[in-house]
This record gives sequence, structure tokens and C-alpha cells, in this order.
Amino acid sequence: MIVEMITGASRREINDVVAKAKSFDLGVQLNIGTDKTVVAILGSNTGQIPTDIFAVLPGVESVTRIMKPYKLASREFSQKDTVVDCGGVKIGGQRIVVIAGPCAVENEKQLMEAAEGVKKAGATILRGGAFKPRTSPFSFQGLQKKGLELLGAVKEKFSIPVVTEVVNPQDVKLVSTYADMLQIGSRNMQNFALLTNAGRSGRPVVLKRGFSCTITEWLTAADYLLAEGKNQVVLCERGIRTFEDSIRFSLDISAVPVLKKNSHLPVIVDPSHAAGHYSLVPAIAKAAVAAGADGLLIEVHPNPKEALVDGLQSLSISDFARLMEELRAIAKAAGRSI
Amino acid sequence: MIVEMITGASRREINDVVAKAKSFDLGVQLNIGTDKTVVAILGSNTGQIPTDIFAVLPGVESVTRIMKPYKLASREFSQKDTVVDCGGVKIGGQRIVVIAGPCAVENEKQLMEAAEGVKKAGATILRGGAFKPRTSPFSFQGLQKKGLELLGAVKEKFSIPVVTEVVNPQDVKLVSTYADMLQIGSRNMQNFALLTNAGRSGRPVVLKRGFSCTITEWLTAADYLLAEGKNQVVLCERGIRTFEDSIRFSLDISAVPVLKKNSHLPVIVDPSHAAGHYSLVPAIAKAAVAAGADGLLIEVHPNPKEALVDGLQSLSISDFARLMEELRAIAKAAGRSI
Amino acid sequence: MIVEMITGASRREINDVVAKAKSFDLGVQLNIGTDKTVVAILGSNTGQIPTDIFAVLPGVESVTRIMKPYKLASREFSQKDTVVDCGGVKIGGQRIVVIAGPCAVENEKQLMEAAEGVKKAGATILRGGAFKPRTSPFSFQGLQKKGLELLGAVKEKFSIPVVTEVVNPQDVKLVSTYADMLQIGSRNMQNFALLTNAGRSGRPVVLKRGFSCTITEWLTAADYLLAEGKNQVVLCERGIRTFEDSIRFSLDISAVPVLKKNSHLPVIVDPSHAAGHYSLVPAIAKAAVAAGADGLLIEVHPNPKEALVDGLQSLSISDFARLMEELRAIAKAAGRSI
Amino acid sequence: MIVEMITGASRREINDVVAKAKSFDLGVQLNIGTDKTVVAILGSNTGQIPTDIFAVLPGVESVTRIMKPYKLASREFSQKDTVVDCGGVKIGGQRIVVIAGPCAVENEKQLMEAAEGVKKAGATILRGGAFKPRTSPFSFQGLQKKGLELLGAVKEKFSIPVVTEVVNPQDVKLVSTYADMLQIGSRNMQNFALLTNAGRSGRPVVLKRGFSCTITEWLTAADYLLAEGKNQVVLCERGIRTFEDSIRFSLDISAVPVLKKNSHLPVIVDPSHAAGHYSLVPAIAKAAVAAGADGLLIEVHPNPKEALVDGLQSLSISDFARLMEELRAIAKAAGRSI
Repeated sequence: MIVEMITGASRREINDVVAKAKSFDLGVQLNIGTDKTVVAILGSNTGQIPTDIFAVLPGVESVTRIMKPYKLASREFSQKDTVVDCGGVKIGGQRIVVIAGPCAVENEKQLMEAAEGVKKAGATILRGGAFKPRTSPFSFQGLQKKGLELLGAVKEKFSIPVVTEVVNPQDVKLVSTYADMLQIGSRNMQNFALLTNAGRSGRPVVLKRGFSCTITEWLTAADYLLAEGKNQVVLCERGIRTFEDSIRFSLDISAVPVLKKNSHLPVIVDPSHAAGHYSLVPAIAKAAVAAGADGLLIEVHPNPKEALVDGLQSLSISDFARLMEELRAIAKAAGRSI
Repeated sequence: MIVEMITGASRREINDVVAKAKSFDLGVQLNIGTDKTVVAILGSNTGQIPTDIFAVLPGVESVTRIMKPYKLASREFSQKDTVVDCGGVKIGGQRIVVIAGPCAVENEKQLMEAAEGVKKAGATILRGGAFKPRTSPFSFQGLQKKGLELLGAVKEKFSIPVVTEVVNPQDVKLVSTYADMLQIGSRNMQNFALLTNAGRSGRPVVLKRGFSCTITEWLTAADYLLAEGKNQVVLCERGIRTFEDSIRFSLDISAVPVLKKNSHLPVIVDPSHAAGHYSLVPAIAKAAVAAGADGLLIEVHPNPKEALVDGLQSLSISDFARLMEELRAIAKAAGRSI
Repeated sequence: MIVEMITGASRREINDVVAKAKSFDLGVQLNIGTDKTVVAILGSNTGQIPTDIFAVLPGVESVTRIMKPYKLASREFSQKDTVVDCGGVKIGGQRIVVIAGPCAVENEKQLMEAAEGVKKAGATILRGGAFKPRTSPFSFQGLQKKGLELLGAVKEKFSIPVVTEVVNPQDVKLVSTYADMLQIGSRNMQNFALLTNAGRSGRPVVLKRGFSCTITEWLTAADYLLAEGKNQVVLCERGIRTFEDSIRFSLDISAVPVLKKNSHLPVIVDPSHAAGHYSLVPAIAKAAVAAGADGLLIEVHPNPKEALVDGLQSLSISDFARLMEELRAIAKAAGRSI
Repeated sequence: MIVEMITGASRREINDVVAKAKSFDLGVQLNIGTDKTVVAILGSNTGQIPTDIFAVLPGVESVTRIMKPYKLASREFSQKDTVVDCGGVKIGGQRIVVIAGPCAVENEKQLMEAAEGVKKAGATILRGGAFKPRTSPFSFQGLQKKGLELLGAVKEKFSIPVVTEVVNPQDVKLVSTYADMLQIGSRNMQNFALLTNAGRSGRPVVLKRGFSCTITEWLTAADYLLAEGKNQVVLCERGIRTFEDSIRFSLDISAVPVLKKNSHLPVIVDPSHAAGHYSLVPAIAKAAVAAGADGLLIEVHPNPKEALVDGLQSLSISDFARLMEELRAIAKAAGRSI
């Protein structure tokens, strides 16, 4: 941590900074420049110490963090890439994992058709929402428990692991009995009560990026999951909020190489929620694979025109099958398989 | 809702749009232009119908919503300004309400000193956090139940109503027994399970704006609270995430007049969380009052240098008292009192 | 254009809207809903008429544009993809074009080495800046005329077309005598005096996206170039400003499919300025090709450590050669060549 | 400047950083922590040295600038507030200056009525655009030279100084013969050729903030003007681009106190371009005065309904006169006058 004193800071003010650092068992080195004094605060734990501790002191101009605030999710913590196991499917290895299925579980027929279609086309994990966080209280909120039961039934029938979203801390246990992997949605990335419960569930967790959270905040949220002692977190980039209005969320493609550099966790991309429109999904999906993503999360519906939720961003099964062909070629060119 | 067909859309595609609208009991009017056909979808409830229903149909170029998606929070729903009662203090009337106190409840002494100081300076509601949503799992998470008990004690002693944050749906009942008003934090604005529980609590609720949510999304989230049948919601602008890096969050001052135009709910401003630095709080607080805010939420700590959380953005009690003097002058110039 | 009247708008207010539309020779259709009246304004030219004309009238709630404000750059204007010719190299055809070279022309040796290296690795156009728009007046501003002369010499020697930036309207003529293609930088995307002069130059123009401009604004700026009667504009996505701080600018990968849908102009991507760091360039470059870009603009320096400008984002010649191999595989998988 | 080495950086890599610093005559202090080595680069001029010089070296993880990149515009450069003289009107003193007038000069009658009306209501400087930077080439581009002549005539008649925008470097001389103060618009904040010419003109300059530029970039752009040796720059906040869509640009109210802290230049606010709608102008204008702005730039039109440009954001003369009354009260409460 670097504490920059104001021009003309007094000796006493500088001493107070030093004393504060020492009270936290931190090392200190003074840099007395011609204009300003800069105090370097040293120690292996400075990433977890709030900058305010120094910033409130008189004579301090600014405090800059050098160590990152996240720890367990960091590349420093584990040089080796983490591979997450979702019902036998490995996420983070050589093979790129495609997770597909409808936004919301609507009924048995819809879910069966989706599962059969996406599995045939090459998806290895099924997605489907039972609890739906909806912007308006007047919108369809998901089938809830009934939806979980349908997911459980389909999973047996097609021998395909299932991922589904959990939105309420007290539902984690229930959802965990049906799902192979839990999903934390974008609006809940900093719902710390939910993160803590999910981390304790024993299930692997897909942590979607908050649509306005930095990568640093995202990895710090992953620390909440990892702090519970399991090492099974998948990061999912799903678009960020920007000023651009031609798309629902701007997919942050650079998040893929940035995460690969700074974290050991597997990274997948959800082109559907970013795009908001099926016609943009293929280009973004292919870009994600070329950029080095470990997987994709794609919305597929047997009949998008009749979907209760997000039909516009869903691929039909035949469109999805065609996209899988194109993705296979890109994956191969990138030295991987699907 | 306005459905714009692509250039060259077929008669059959247009008919499908019309049939879909009729299946939802909506009126339809065709506008056949020289280049394009535009279908106006009419009805008093179109704000709550998803645009996707039409956007997925073949031949549709775009769907534009004319009616807003929120309803209960809208100015159309109530021409009369709502006045919220927090333990006898009216929010939304002629008098501007100042809510002040420490970010986190730390101990009895700190809370007593804060309560005494802010009350003396003119604050009429005390704030203090018992459950703290923290970005990192390694940070201080609040005193929790013990903090609530301290708030209860201080409230009795100083006869001042208390507002405190609730972060977990299952804590709503507990928090409601101690607090006169519940606070939903920025990161939980779209935590719909929490909103539903808080709406049912019978307590008035301060709903902070999600730091990357539009005003439309904010008012739609307020609908979750209002849908439970009580009419007691206060909106709190606390800064939005932008590219500007000289401040923690950019306070959206225009939110005040925009909300006054589009909603009947009272509007308060939190300059402390936006600023992130005590030196910027007074200017923003004064601007908020001049812009027409109904109240302020200000962090005040008896000893900011020793604060466990957010000391940098807290005013000392003497700084707060001085600011109150300045605010009184601005309020008077704006035809109100404090 | 859709004019939404306020609830309770008077007959006279509605008539005024109709009269205003007719004074512009526009068609009108009234939609009298249960709550609101909506007036559709019809005509092939409504995209170029300001919405304010109606929005200022009493009784008007909002005005929504259906037609896009750009015209010459739109897909409606030309169904056929435009292919731009830069000194004999075609941009926008089956073959993906790689433009490479140093950020700034520094001296003859540096430029010669760069040209030789990038050509050998497969780049078909050389880039190099002679006029450098720099954030600070105290930074190196480019070799200016001397830089243009060096570009002219290198172009002869290596028989490779050259693109370089122009920043001042009065330099367009000079730069055009040396360059095969002009570049308009991000900060000048809405420098309309410069656009007009560049459009008149007879040279093809690479128009970089303003780092905070929407795609609609970008295509409208392209109309300034196209309005001068030549059809030779290349669009270059180079990253947009967002809240994310791990990268200089967030590359908007979805801009590629969005532009392909809405415009006939070729689209290239500059991963170097977005990334700001050489280690992120390859992932973004590969993503761009997979997403369907027609070309890349990549900074390459024979000795990045000694670069006067932007060394950190420059690839070395050997790194560039390796990336070209990877790009060839992705391009082939996407059905194209490099 | 703080150079953070990667974990495990070699002694040689550290030495290379030190050597590079010494080659620029900079001081160096090493901080060898338990995990990482941090090198502090010292010297009074480090704000003007690019961080890339160190960031490209092997073994460097990150480079953090402590000194700001701007110099002449900084508070360190001048503790004393600069007061700018615009045709005898002082900007930056005790009295708040209101600059008002139409967006575009349309004809003599319109300009005369505007000048007479705003002067009577208390404005002390007249604004009016002769050269209009327009998003689309098909929009009205201003009266240009004819507009300047009208401004010159009105200025004589009403004895009121005039500010007008300049958009092309080669027009600076012409515009300076008519205008008391030049305006650089938001889209030209980083048009460095224009800045340089304007800085040389001898006229004071209003520098509007680029709608997506940080305050640091803005003050660095001001350095371009100040580097020409005159000390006459006024900063104008006019709203920034964010995700919020209820307003054209989000006015950054915190820019006022941030600029007052970091710069000696006077600060004014343009509520009209931020709001985009006349109904939001008064609240923002009052907030700006309460926050400490030295002046306002407000669009006023004798007949907003017939305005050729931006009628929707223009106040009528009677609305402006009413606002001036309200502003006087706020200014007085803030210890100033208008």
C-alpha cells in the first residue's frame, strides 16, 4: 500500500502514518521526495487491510493499493488451473464445455425437448431456471419447486448434469438436492448472505459477473465462496452495462484473458444474456472460444416464439446445432475440443 | 408498445403480430408507411407485457415500449406526493429530514456519542449498520444482533427513530423489531426475495438505488415493495458507477427532479457513499437540497479516524453541525425548512 | 417517429402535433388509446428530422425515433457489402486484412525494421503515426512532416500501402500525398471539420470509433465522410470507455455483428489500443476474427522497450509473427483466409 | 511513480528498472517486501513521464502514477484562484456569472430578443453559436460568418460581452475578432490542434468537459491552453455519458468540489446540455450554485418551439427570469451574489 502525503505534510503527520502501520504489524519505508513524502506500507496481508485506515489521517493525500483485495481466487494463491467437476463433466480442462437449455423451466414437454435437443447437438450440461429473478413483480417468477422436480426428472432420463439458479439463501439446501451445480446470477454477485450459503453447500457454483462489477470485485466475491473451503467455482462473464444501446449488455471479451492471468478459476461466457437477441449470439460465442474461454452458457428453447421468458435471446435447437458445428471448428483452431 | 416491421415485411408477418396482440386482449392500429409498417399496440396494461412477445416474431425489426414498466411507484398511479412516517418523523413533507449516524454500529459508547451529537445538531432520525454487506469476506461484517440491541437501547434513550440495513430475507422480522425503518442497500436493490419480505414487514423502507441501475429499474424494484400493499417507500440516490475516478460513485443529481416528475415517492440523497471522502460531502449535500431532495442520509462518526468501516467518508460531529447550519440556509432559500 | 401525448392531452395539443408534421410534408396516423394518444409520423425521411420539433410542443410526453438517423452508411442504403481499396489491398472481401506497424514513426531504422518484419509475417498494409494526438502537451507529438516522408520512402521500398492518422483539417491534403488511406482517430470521430475535409480527399478513410460513442453515432459520423460522394470508409472498433479498470478500454466485440447487420461498410478491430498491454492483444485479436471482423489493426514495434509512444501495447515482431500463425487457423475455421 | 515488480522478479530485472529511472535523472528508492519488491520513482517531474517507460520492462507487474499528469492547471501550480476577465466581466470571483442565450444564432430578430431578455433578467454574458458541430451532416450547421457578424452587432447594441464556439483551428482568428471569449465544445476537448490555436488567440477560453473524459484528462487538456502562456481558462461541466437514460447526459455535480480542490481555474456548469429538457434545467442550475460553481451557462430562446437547434432544452425568457430569482436566493444562502 502506498500512502502519498500532501505537499508540506508535517513530520508529525508522517509519524502518525508510520505509527498506524506499525499498530497493524506492517512494515514501513519512507520515500522523502523533493515535493512530497511517500510512505510504502509493506507486508503480505496488505490486500485485506482497508485503505481508509490511512486515508483518514491528517496530511494524507491519497492511498493506493498495490496488493489486490482478493486472495483465494488469485493466481498467486494457486499457480495451477482449477478444474471444476459438475456431475462428472470437467470444466477448465482441454475440452470446452457447452451448457445449454431454456432460460426458464416452463413444463415437462418443453424441458424434455430442450434436453434431448441440446444433448444431441453436443451440450454436456443442461441449464434451466426454476427460480427466476425478474425485474418486475408482475412478471412470471418461475415454477420454483415444481421446476426443480422437473429438472431432477430430466436429468435422470437423459443422464446429463444440471445447473440452475438459486436466489434466496434459504433455498440453497433445496436447490442443492436437485442440481449438480448452483448458479448465482448477476444481480446477486454481491448478495453475500447467498454467497456464504452457496459456498457451504458442497455443490460447485457458477458465479456470474455483476453487470456493473469490476473483475477485482468479482474475484473478491469469489473469495466469499472459496472461504467456505471448497475449491469449486466457475466464473461466468455475461456482459456489462455500458452506454452502448444496440445490445442489452456489452460482452467484456477482455475479461477472458484478464481472468486467465489473475485467477486459477475456470471461465465461461454467456453470450445470450449479453446479446439479448438470438442473431448476435453466434458471433459472441465464437469470439469467446477464440479468446480462450473454458465453456459457454447458451439459452436454447424448442420454440423460442412461445417462450415465457427471454425468447428473443434463445436459439432454436436447429440454430444451436449449427452453431455447435462452427464452434467445433474454432475450438480446434484454438487447440481445444468441444 | 410500438412494433416496427422490417422493410418488406410480408402481409402474413404483419398479421401474426396483430393476432398475437389480440391473443393478449390488446388493441392494434396499423400504420402502413412508404417504407415500413408500424404496428401500435394499445391497452392500459402494455407496460407490464414483455416486448419479447412481439420481438421474436418473424419480420419484426424492433419493439419500443411507450408505457413504463413500473406502475405502483409511478406519478400516474398517485398524483399526490406520498409522505412516509418513520417513527413519527414525516419524510416527503415541507420539512427536509436529515438522517445521520455512523456507517456501522461499533459499540455502545460510539453509538451513544453519535446519537447525542447528531440529534443536537438537528438530525431527526439515527442511522447505524448492524449487518454490513462487505465486498471482501475478510472485512468486519458488523455486530449483527448485538448491534440491533444497541440501536434499540439508544433509540429509547434519545427518543430518536432508527433506520438500519437488512441484508438477508430471513432477518427481516428480527430487524423490524428494533428498527423504525428498514434500509435496502444498493447491492440488494434487485434482491427480489429481500424486497418481498421487506414489503411485507409493515415497516417503511428506504430503497437505495443500485449503483448501476436506471431510474426505471429502480422504480420497478419499488413496485416489489409496494405490491405488498403498504405505501411506505423512500427512494435514496447514493451515486452511480461511471468512468470518473476522482470520486467513489458519481452522484446523479438529476435523479432528484426526474423522480419528482415520474413518481410520488419521497426522495433522499446519500452524499457520503457517493463521495467516499468527507471533504466532498458538504457540496453534494447542499446541491441535493437545492435540487429538491426531501432528505439526506449522512454518515457521522464521533471519531472518524478510529472508525471500523468507511471512516474516510464520515463527518465528525462538529463538521456535521457546521454543515447543518449551511443546509438550513439553502433549505430556506428553496422555500423549505430543516 | 412516434409522438406520445401526455395522459389528458387536449384535442388542440394533438392537432398542433399533426399540423407541425404536415408542415414538414410528413404523413400522420392517430392512435387514440384508452389512456393516451399516440401519433405516428410517417415518411421516408423522418430519420433526419430532429425529434425536438415535436418534443417542444405542449402536451407531448415523449418522441421516439423509429428510423435511424444515419442514412448513407446504413444497410438499407446498400444491401451489398462495400469493399474498400487501399493501394490495391481489398478490405471487406473474403480475405482478412492485417494492418500492422508502430504507433508512432520514430526514425528511419525503426520504421524500416517494422515494415520488413510485419510484411514478412503477413501484414499487407503498414501503419505508423506521423501526427500524434497526445493527452498531455508535454508528450512527444510525432515527427509530423518528416514522419510522412519516412512513410513515403518505406512504402516505396517495401511495396506496401500505408495508412496514417490525420488530426488537423488543414493537413488532409499533405497527408493524402503520402498515405494510401487516412485514419481518423477516436478523439476525432466527431470532429466534423476534419471529417468533411477527409471525405473530400479522395483517399479511403479508416474511421475509428469514438471511445464513448454509440454505434448509431459512429455510423452517423460515417455519413459525414460518405456525404462527400466517395464510398470508401472502413470502420474500426478500438474499445470503449467503461467502469472496468483492468484494461485501458473495453473492446466491444458485439460491435462486429451489430455493424454487419446495420451497415454495408467493412469492419476492422484494433486490439492494441483497447488492451493497452501486449499480453491481452492476442486473445482479443483472435476473438475479433472469430466474430467476423474484416481486418485487424495491430501495433508492432521492433523494440517495444524503447518505443517513444505506447510501447506497452506493442507486440514485438516475433510475437506478431506467432500471432499471425494463430490467426490464420482461426480465420480458416471461420471460412476465411488471411 | 510506483513500480511494483512481480513476485519473484530477479535482481537483474529490478536493476533494469533502477537504471531506466536514472537515465531520466529520477531518484529511486527500493522497498523490498516479503512477497514483492516495490520501486518508488522520485522527482518533481514524474507526472509528465509516461508510465509505459517502466511498464514494458521485464519483471514489472504494474506502474502507478502518484503525481498527476497535469501541471499548469493544478492547484499546486497556483494556490490562488484564477479570475478570468471576459470583456470586463470577472469569472471566478465572489459574484456568480450567468451566461445565457440561444444555442444557435438564427437571425437578427431572434438574437436581439434573446440578448435583451437575458440581460434584463440578470445575465452578464451572452452566448450564441455561429458554428454548430452537429451529429448528422444533414442537420443545420449554423450561420457561420453571418452568425458572428450578428453577434458582433448585438454585443455593441446591448453592451454585453459575447462567447461563441469555435470548431475548426483555422477559424480561431476569425472568431476571436468578434467574440470576447471562445468556447471549445465537449466533442473537441481533446482536439489538440484546436486547443493549441485557441490558446494562442489571446482570448479567454471556456473549455467544456468531454462527455466521457475524466477530470484528470480535462485538466490535462486545459494544460494545452495554458501552455501557450495565457492564464485565462474557464472549465465548464456539462454532463457525462452514463448508462442512465432519463436524461441526455448525467451532470457530474461532484466535479465542482473536485475541481475546486485540484485546480485554480474557475468552474461553471451548463445544465441545459446535460438535461436535454427544459423541465430539468432549474433543479440542476440551483444544485450547481449550491455546490459552489462560479457560474452557469444556460440556453434561453425567445421562442423555444420554433428553435432550429435544441429547442427542447431551452428556457423561454420568462422561465429564465423566474429561475434567476430562485438562483439569487440560493447564491445568497451560499454567501455569494449573482
